[in-house]
Amino acid sequence: MLTLYDYLPSGNGYKIRLLLSQLGMPFRLVEKDIQRGETRTPEFLAINANGRIPVLAWDDGRRLAESDAILFFLAEGTPFLPGDRFARAEVLQWMFFEQYSHEPYIAVARAWVHVYAKTVDSARLAEKREGGYQALGVMERHLAERRFFVAERYSIADIALYAYTHVADEGGFDLAGYPSVRAWLARVAAEPRYVPITQRVFS
Amino acid sequence: MLTLYDYLPSGNGYKIRLLLSQLGMPFRLVEKDIQRGETRTPEFLAINANGRIPVLAWDDGRRLAESDAILFFLAEGTPFLPGDRFARAEVLQWMFFEQYSHEPYIAVARAWVHVYAKTVDSARLAEKREGGYQALGVMERHLAERRFFVAERYSIADIALYAYTHVADEGGFDLAGYPSVRAWLARVAAEPRYVPITQRVFS
Repeated sequence: MLTLYDYLPSGNGYKIRLLLSQLGMPFRLVEKDIQRGETRTPEFLAINANGRIPVLAWDDGRRLAESDAILFFLAEGTPFLPGDRFARAEVLQWMFFEQYSHEPYIAVARAWVHVYAKTVDSARLAEKREGGYQALGVMERHLAERRFFVAERYSIADIALYAYTHVADEGGFDLAGYPSVRAWLARVAAEPRYVPITQRVFS
Repeated sequence: MLTLYDYLPSGNGYKIRLLLSQLGMPFRLVEKDIQRGETRTPEFLAINANGRIPVLAWDDGRRLAESDAILFFLAEGTPFLPGDRFARAEVLQWMFFEQYSHEPYIAVARAWVHVYAKTVDSARLAEKREGGYQALGVMERHLAERRFFVAERYSIADIALYAYTHVADEGGFDLAGYPSVRAWLARVAAEPRYVPITQRVFS
């Protein structure tokens, strides 16, 4: 049985929960509360030296960190990752875009405002908002003529970008000016075996 | 012939130049000066809507952005990417670590101090240094018992992490306390067909 070390409000963790649900793969969820420092204990650092969730663990001792690397591993050979070499690279392009140009702005603003609900320096938050809207603009232009990010089919590129985009409002982002992004969010949510971000029980 | 849109001081661009050299693949280098805003022109935004180098372009019109996605595409089926599915996922794990937990600290500190040589808020720089040393600590512990990052052989995981680590001193990082990282840097620099970061001519 697979074990997923995770924190329910995490979009990065949700990516894995959503794909595992859509693949019909059962797993054991072990929750680690980031806010209580449970990913920085010696015990957890032995699981992931970088001190972050999600981590996927196998019964034979193998472990994998980094949400998008886990998605790629799980999706290989399934309809969630194109078989064509160039399309696969495009999927990775969007996943690296997500981790570098999207998550550090949209997810971090949401964490500050919604998850930790802590007092934030307004200049720092404004920087996060600016970077987030820039990423949303890139997505909007790409989706204006496409149904999904790569090869006109739902893939782990969509899962990676959906995770924090669909809760961007919790970070104070207004998607009113991004109609193509909103239409795409609805398409993703309509996919078979979709589960919401904080669902704890899987079947 | 491949075309690489790039900026010579960029470690992200260097990753591609190094791998293309080691693969013996000729390419045309088109330099875009980030500091002059040459990656934010309408012309360049048509090449990459995210306004960043490197971008690899093919004569048939295909284009790929995001350094680590380009590395993955070029390395598939070569000795620079393991054939084993789990090892490939581990390579991706380290590349996502690089883009999320390493580059935003080590590369950005270097850009501020060395490339742009601009006046930087000391508190912001201290944050970058702290994050950078944390990433170096993760690398040091991993390399203490290994020659390379994945499967004991040189791969694109090493190229991705080498790019900014080997010039970390330009961002004010001191690697004295990271002997395993320094030994690994020397191993990478000794690989066949190695080229230095600012080399413009390739054969």
